[in-house]
Amino acid sequence: MKIYDLRSDTVTLPDPNMRKAMYEAEVGDDVYHEDPSVNRLQDMAAEITGTEAALFVTSGSMGNLIPLYVNAGRGTEVLAASQSHIIQHEVGAISAIAGTMPIGISVPRGILTVDAIKDAVKPLSYDLARTAMLEIENTIGGYPYDLENVTALAAFAHKKNMTVHMDGARIFNAATATGMSVSAYVHGVDTMTFCLSKGLGAPVGSLLCGSLPFIEAAMRVRKILGGGMRQSGILAAAGIYALEHNVKRLSQDHEHATVLAQTLHASGWANVDMEGVKTNIIFFTVPGMSEEDAVSWLAEAGIRVGIDGGKIRLVTNLNITDDDVQDIIVKLERMAPPCKQTSGEKR
Amino acid sequence: MKIYDLRSDTVTLPDPNMRKAMYEAEVGDDVYHEDPSVNRLQDMAAEITGTEAALFVTSGSMGNLIPLYVNAGRGTEVLAASQSHIIQHEVGAISAIAGTMPIGISVPRGILTVDAIKDAVKPLSYDLARTAMLEIENTIGGYPYDLENVTALAAFAHKKNMTVHMDGARIFNAATATGMSVSAYVHGVDTMTFCLSKGLGAPVGSLLCGSLPFIEAAMRVRKILGGGMRQSGILAAAGIYALEHNVKRLSQDHEHATVLAQTLHASGWANVDMEGVKTNIIFFTVPGMSEEDAVSWLAEAGIRVGIDGGKIRLVTNLNITDDDVQDIIVKLERMAPPCKQTSGEKR
Amino acid sequence: MKIYDLRSDTVTLPDPNMRKAMYEAEVGDDVYHEDPSVNRLQDMAAEITGTEAALFVTSGSMGNLIPLYVNAGRGTEVLAASQSHIIQHEVGAISAIAGTMPIGISVPRGILTVDAIKDAVKPLSYDLARTAMLEIENTIGGYPYDLENVTALAAFAHKKNMTVHMDGARIFNAATATGMSVSAYVHGVDTMTFCLSKGLGAPVGSLLCGSLPFIEAAMRVRKILGGGMRQSGILAAAGIYALEHNVKRLSQDHEHATVLAQTLHASGWANVDMEGVKTNIIFFTVPGMSEEDAVSWLAEAGIRVGIDGGKIRLVTNLNITDDDVQDIIVKLERMAPPCKQTSGEKR
Amino acid sequence: MKIYDLRSDTVTLPDPNMRKAMYEAEVGDDVYHEDPSVNRLQDMAAEITGTEAALFVTSGSMGNLIPLYVNAGRGTEVLAASQSHIIQHEVGAISAIAGTMPIGISVPRGILTVDAIKDAVKPLSYDLARTAMLEIENTIGGYPYDLENVTALAAFAHKKNMTVHMDGARIFNAATATGMSVSAYVHGVDTMTFCLSKGLGAPVGSLLCGSLPFIEAAMRVRKILGGGMRQSGILAAAGIYALEHNVKRLSQDHEHATVLAQTLHASGWANVDMEGVKTNIIFFTVPGMSEEDAVSWLAEAGIRVGIDGGKIRLVTNLNITDDDVQDIIVKLERMAPPCKQTSGEKR
Repeated sequence: MKIYDLRSDTVTLPDPNMRKAMYEAEVGDDVYHEDPSVNRLQDMAAEITGTEAALFVTSGSMGNLIPLYVNAGRGTEVLAASQSHIIQHEVGAISAIAGTMPIGISVPRGILTVDAIKDAVKPLSYDLARTAMLEIENTIGGYPYDLENVTALAAFAHKKNMTVHMDGARIFNAATATGMSVSAYVHGVDTMTFCLSKGLGAPVGSLLCGSLPFIEAAMRVRKILGGGMRQSGILAAAGIYALEHNVKRLSQDHEHATVLAQTLHASGWANVDMEGVKTNIIFFTVPGMSEEDAVSWLAEAGIRVGIDGGKIRLVTNLNITDDDVQDIIVKLERMAPPCKQTSGEKR
Repeated sequence: MKIYDLRSDTVTLPDPNMRKAMYEAEVGDDVYHEDPSVNRLQDMAAEITGTEAALFVTSGSMGNLIPLYVNAGRGTEVLAASQSHIIQHEVGAISAIAGTMPIGISVPRGILTVDAIKDAVKPLSYDLARTAMLEIENTIGGYPYDLENVTALAAFAHKKNMTVHMDGARIFNAATATGMSVSAYVHGVDTMTFCLSKGLGAPVGSLLCGSLPFIEAAMRVRKILGGGMRQSGILAAAGIYALEHNVKRLSQDHEHATVLAQTLHASGWANVDMEGVKTNIIFFTVPGMSEEDAVSWLAEAGIRVGIDGGKIRLVTNLNITDDDVQDIIVKLERMAPPCKQTSGEKR
Repeated sequence: MKIYDLRSDTVTLPDPNMRKAMYEAEVGDDVYHEDPSVNRLQDMAAEITGTEAALFVTSGSMGNLIPLYVNAGRGTEVLAASQSHIIQHEVGAISAIAGTMPIGISVPRGILTVDAIKDAVKPLSYDLARTAMLEIENTIGGYPYDLENVTALAAFAHKKNMTVHMDGARIFNAATATGMSVSAYVHGVDTMTFCLSKGLGAPVGSLLCGSLPFIEAAMRVRKILGGGMRQSGILAAAGIYALEHNVKRLSQDHEHATVLAQTLHASGWANVDMEGVKTNIIFFTVPGMSEEDAVSWLAEAGIRVGIDGGKIRLVTNLNITDDDVQDIIVKLERMAPPCKQTSGEKR
Repeated sequence: MKIYDLRSDTVTLPDPNMRKAMYEAEVGDDVYHEDPSVNRLQDMAAEITGTEAALFVTSGSMGNLIPLYVNAGRGTEVLAASQSHIIQHEVGAISAIAGTMPIGISVPRGILTVDAIKDAVKPLSYDLARTAMLEIENTIGGYPYDLENVTALAAFAHKKNMTVHMDGARIFNAATATGMSVSAYVHGVDTMTFCLSKGLGAPVGSLLCGSLPFIEAAMRVRKILGGGMRQSGILAAAGIYALEHNVKRLSQDHEHATVLAQTLHASGWANVDMEGVKTNIIFFTVPGMSEEDAVSWLAEAGIRVGIDGGKIRLVTNLNITDDDVQDIIVKLERMAPPCKQTSGEKR
């Protein structure tokens, strides 16, 4: 039985063409800024995002941590959606390393608005943490921001002397879904991180984008964190390939997610957040089953999914083809959940 | 015109008897543990709270920071009410110094419950922050915890391998209001800080209480923070006096708050949170006036109040006598807010 | 038998006049900047040091930590004598809290010179820590800096874009010994901390002095560290008294140290660093005895001394009168060390 | 003219065979521990070093930072040679991130001994930083430790309740030079980091080795630092190749260094630290020229060298063949330094 890994879009494996790009990569010592592939990738990232400069970092977490360290830091706080990656999935690095306190804002689907954040900005006072940064995750849970909302949030934040960081790990999914360009999304914000190893399918790395002075500071912090790499052009070559070939195919992942969501919705046994399916991520529950049980049950059918925030998460990705989707649909349609547990402590 | 300072119970001034206690204090070098007054105060604190040991620290903030540093630290998170002092009023020290990430829980009046926190505890995983501590502020906004609730919260937290810290800055107010002993409140928690300079009226200092190994670790962290003092017995003597004489009179502050709240409520122009008046703190608004304008208007009448969380805060305290309260009542009854502003951007 | 405590000048106890000053102190809530005694002390400190502003802090350690936090911080290093207080006696707070790396410079008596530090300044590079600060401790081990040396060091440091902090815990001893004014010493440096509770005999506190913007930043960091106090005017009143009455008597401590050093030197059994006795501190060894044994032996005679850096340290102070010194001299002259150990592992 | 890059052994480029290994690498998501190549590399590292477990990290700096974070941390100090990498070349991360204070020990060639460190261990006291770790860099400046010395240092440190970390970035050079096995060097220490991208010629990465509980803690800290990678098996495959093929050829680098050092020594214009040439690193000066001028002068001849600690550093490496060495020898023999500068501010 074929196993379909839909736990995340981070599980994608490089295909032969991407491997060939790595094989042929021209490299140098990036600590001396002499790796031509890294330099080229960084230039591409700056161009795509419309920023002055970009820096290749090992992970999206590092790409979020550095702006917090540089532009927020100790004695400050950052406003972010309660369910955002920096609060929920980065091991508290925001506080442990950057020294910044997150203020989680509870908003539907994690989409912040000026109304939702405006009372959380503290007045300037020596005995209060300075509200130094607004963090926007786009997409968040697969849900993209409206451009107008990003623009309004950024304008508000700047008026309050805050900087704005966008965790754009999946910004290409957002741009694909809304038809906006990545640079339009980035236009109003100060710093943005996007991921090469999620929907774009490269093995390792993220790009942190911003002004030239920011990137110079970021390069220093990357070194402090131990994130400096030597001949990282091997990885950068995969990133270049991903930007050149895998952005345009993201719409397929979105189509796959839509049809799979419809299938689940029609199944009768899944409770799907249909309105939330805008890109490549589906959240659902199986009434009568705990998330853990549902994950096991689906895994037995060859469908691996994950759990996030108390729901089952299914993520379409580069490794899932049209044929795969057809096969998964057949499986899902045939499935019937085991007879409902009459009682049952969920955890 | 006499000015009544009701902004906080931190504004109280030592009376002649307390000053005499300081004048006569036997002192020594506390860095060598040779200050007899400090040692006596610490012993008293341990006895009152039923803990093994206590440490004199310069502020309630330091008394909260040290447990976070020792028992939570980097790569962990602490659950606390969104409006708690550690999140709102300690300049982000929790993250800047302790390296801990707060997860603010939105609950009515800041009173946590097991139900409200149970989904926020993260599973143990190397890539998730460890949920290491539960922080209970008692009273919070003047509102005391039910003892049963504290007991249930502590039991839940311990089952989840979390430690429990109580920010008991106003724990004597809580105990006075509920009739529970301080030691009963502390029985289930691991560490507790209470304040000498709020309702108890001493000029400076808090006591951090806990197990002997914890206090030994805390003494070290106090030194790291630069909080070691030399002949601090001068201050400790005031604290001893406060514990001996000013605990039993807290009920007067509570009675004063009740009658002032009733007066405000009856005034017609104030919107008072009557249900919230359990100890010495009153929250209210003046419909039609911004908080800033209302504060100015009351100040003109000799009544100084503060603003906290978007409401006007009035705090009865040691410096306010029965006669003062009668005088303030007369003032409040005579007052009528200026004709309501027809429009008005609040901020 | 009367016990003479010469372990440190931190052990001094406030006399009745200083206690009276505290008893009568006018106080307010310093968190609101409303404590008139604190404000007056801070003004006095700024005036004496010739700086724009000053801040009352709980300890000399906090007075050193805050400039490191504000003017050096993470990813930087500070040059300081290997035996300096910030490296040897502040529990690593420089690194744990400020995030700064100390580079200890080995120099005779801890007196830095331009020659001794110039090769330690790192070139500016994104992959090297920035050498951000020079720290001068004056006096260090009781030895004062020449003013010309301070001036030359500060000029060099500023040319290298470093700030200069002076740990002037005993700056009044230095000024007394060299005849220079405190403000002359501070003229070339950016920040300076002096201690009220060493030679000046106040129970608690230090003053951190610098520019107005620096002190505003420092006030914030003091709060982050939990060092904010409420009615600290009680302590400030002792500090005011100390500045007004106890500076001019420091020369007595120095005379006492000189005569005691001569006595020890003449005793035959003590090896005294005579050249190092410039203020109130004497370092010596007792050949044939370990430091621990020598300390015990002297304690039996009623003379309490300390150990620092592998030597015995004797510190004259406010509590030691002319008569006391005569008595101590008699004791020292009569003493003869127990028969020398023929062999003896020291530790 | 062919350019020979002898600035460092970090500049080496992967050869076709190593690239082929990366091309064919089996990979998975290492955040889920599912990357077989990473797992295999980690197993190999543990086996070679004789430790329980190993962790792939992005850089040697991260490999040093994590043990400091886990085993030393805040309020502690680590003893290390003054010229060690953690003090001189890691941007102060030891203090900024781990919160640890380094105590630099001045020793010839950076080779620590028990005698040199024993007085630096602080007694246990709540007001002193705990001396928590000894850090041994092997090789340091190309100079290897005697195994007996490592054993003695480790035994001493353990007796003092310190852990021992070895920065073994070039441990294979040390082992090659002394004939000791890597596991013999690691036997007495607690944690060790070695580098794949120096002499071993892989593009990116280091291995951190230690006990299983330590590696589990380290995995967590790696995530906090943003050092988690996804399909890092691409890089791990190069590391596996390097361990299998490039360890045994390190002796060639050492022979090349020896012959180049002899050539320089015989040239008449270079002052070579001949005694220091034990592995692949040569330090020398060109009397009459500043280091910067000498580097430029050599670069014009196609010989790129670096500067480290005020000396010129030449490092033989994988990219330099026997023929290259012959060619470099010819160049060096023909060179004569430009007429000596009569005066000259060096910097």
